[in-house]
Amino acid sequence: MITSLQNPAIKNIVKLSKNRERREQQLFVIEGARELSLALQSGYRPEALYVCGEIFEKTKYPDLLSFLPGEIVFDISFPVFEKIAYRENSDGIVALVKSKSHGLGDLVLSKNPFLILLESVEKPGNLGAILRTADAAAVDAVIVCDPQSDLYNPNVIRSSVGGLFTVQTAVCSSEEAFEWLQNHNITSYAAELQAAEFYQQTDFSRPSAIVMGTEAEGLSDFWLKNATKRIKIPMRGKIDSLNVSVSTAVLTFEAMRQRGF
Amino acid sequence: MITSLQNPAIKNIVKLSKNRERREQQLFVIEGARELSLALQSGYRPEALYVCGEIFEKTKYPDLLSFLPGEIVFDISFPVFEKIAYRENSDGIVALVKSKSHGLGDLVLSKNPFLILLESVEKPGNLGAILRTADAAAVDAVIVCDPQSDLYNPNVIRSSVGGLFTVQTAVCSSEEAFEWLQNHNITSYAAELQAAEFYQQTDFSRPSAIVMGTEAEGLSDFWLKNATKRIKIPMRGKIDSLNVSVSTAVLTFEAMRQRGF
Repeated sequence: MITSLQNPAIKNIVKLSKNRERREQQLFVIEGARELSLALQSGYRPEALYVCGEIFEKTKYPDLLSFLPGEIVFDISFPVFEKIAYRENSDGIVALVKSKSHGLGDLVLSKNPFLILLESVEKPGNLGAILRTADAAAVDAVIVCDPQSDLYNPNVIRSSVGGLFTVQTAVCSSEEAFEWLQNHNITSYAAELQAAEFYQQTDFSRPSAIVMGTEAEGLSDFWLKNATKRIKIPMRGKIDSLNVSVSTAVLTFEAMRQRGF
Repeated sequence: MITSLQNPAIKNIVKLSKNRERREQQLFVIEGARELSLALQSGYRPEALYVCGEIFEKTKYPDLLSFLPGEIVFDISFPVFEKIAYRENSDGIVALVKSKSHGLGDLVLSKNPFLILLESVEKPGNLGAILRTADAAAVDAVIVCDPQSDLYNPNVIRSSVGGLFTVQTAVCSSEEAFEWLQNHNITSYAAELQAAEFYQQTDFSRPSAIVMGTEAEGLSDFWLKNATKRIKIPMRGKIDSLNVSVSTAVLTFEAMRQRGF
């Protein structure tokens, strides 16, 4: 059992809370049995599992460990778990996992795809909430252009409730995404307060991508200029803004409604 | 100019970050020029204003102080501002404001009202996001039953982006809310994963209230039993859940779409 807070493997888990370390090591951390089981289902492979038995014995996912080779499972003491755990209710399990590449070329699309494209989303919590929505709405993929927070940020994983592992994702530049959309004949709809067309009058029945801007600044000129259409959600109050995860969900579920779901 | 961190008024502002203090003193704190101007427009009256000139001189709302009696405006030093400020980008202005009552009897309804009812919402950030959505969709009111975080929590104010001040709100028990809905002939739609009816097939064109449960547990038996109908959003992914502020927005904007907005 690992009991030392100075154990190098334990210290490395803490280090991986930093974006730079995740990028350089090509590793990240998954906390929680449910999230880990979703990640396993979608082909992520853990390099090591750190398990605090006194917490894990209460998990709703007791079979989880039986799917994993015993030699990568390490018992840890409660103080060690507390040091590496990022949240409460995490089932006493923390996994060190190999990152995947998230290339546009790896996306597998349905016949009539619907995609969510996010430009430079800032807050990990918003990215996570959008992945959770993307799972519920069964969108083909979420494309993240020029992100300000990486997909493996612990807050993204937590707020996605595992959606990061159930939804196809790609990370690329806006230019690459635009070219890819064109090559796949996907119509792009830039969400913008000043657009002339309301989303309820927009036809999302053919291959479509909604393009959402940053929390603070909205979309860049690149997307305002290059997207096929600009659309807006009616703002009937005094504040004239919606949270980006909320506006993404409103557009996505309207598209799904039009498609008969 | 107030420069002492030990100034009793300054210490009291810090105290008011606690729910109990807000309740006992019937006072709360508004930070930011935009939020304060929205609060003033809806009849909130500040008892004192603390202004850090070197930050406030960059505000987009320079006229704000001219609407307020000079004797309640106090200059504060930057260190004092830092002590009482809760967030960045807050224009160097912090106001001490008298709470309002939030009774059901005070709500003024349109001819064909649409309301959002939240049961025991836990996270201030979710309550705030829902108020922001309620502003954008111009709902008649948000009714908060048996809340676990009070309306004047600083995180509610911040995440509502001022929506707390532009949307009518009432706080009451579930029993009171139910009786009030009946007296006003408002149909209630309980959002629940196990419901038989999909929200897209629900007719929201008459007086309606959607009833949303807590983040962790969903709705209580009281609402599942007493609401007029149960409705659900189709869950087509693996996670079977949406953030409560997202599901509230999806239902609300579908209702508005049906109503021609």
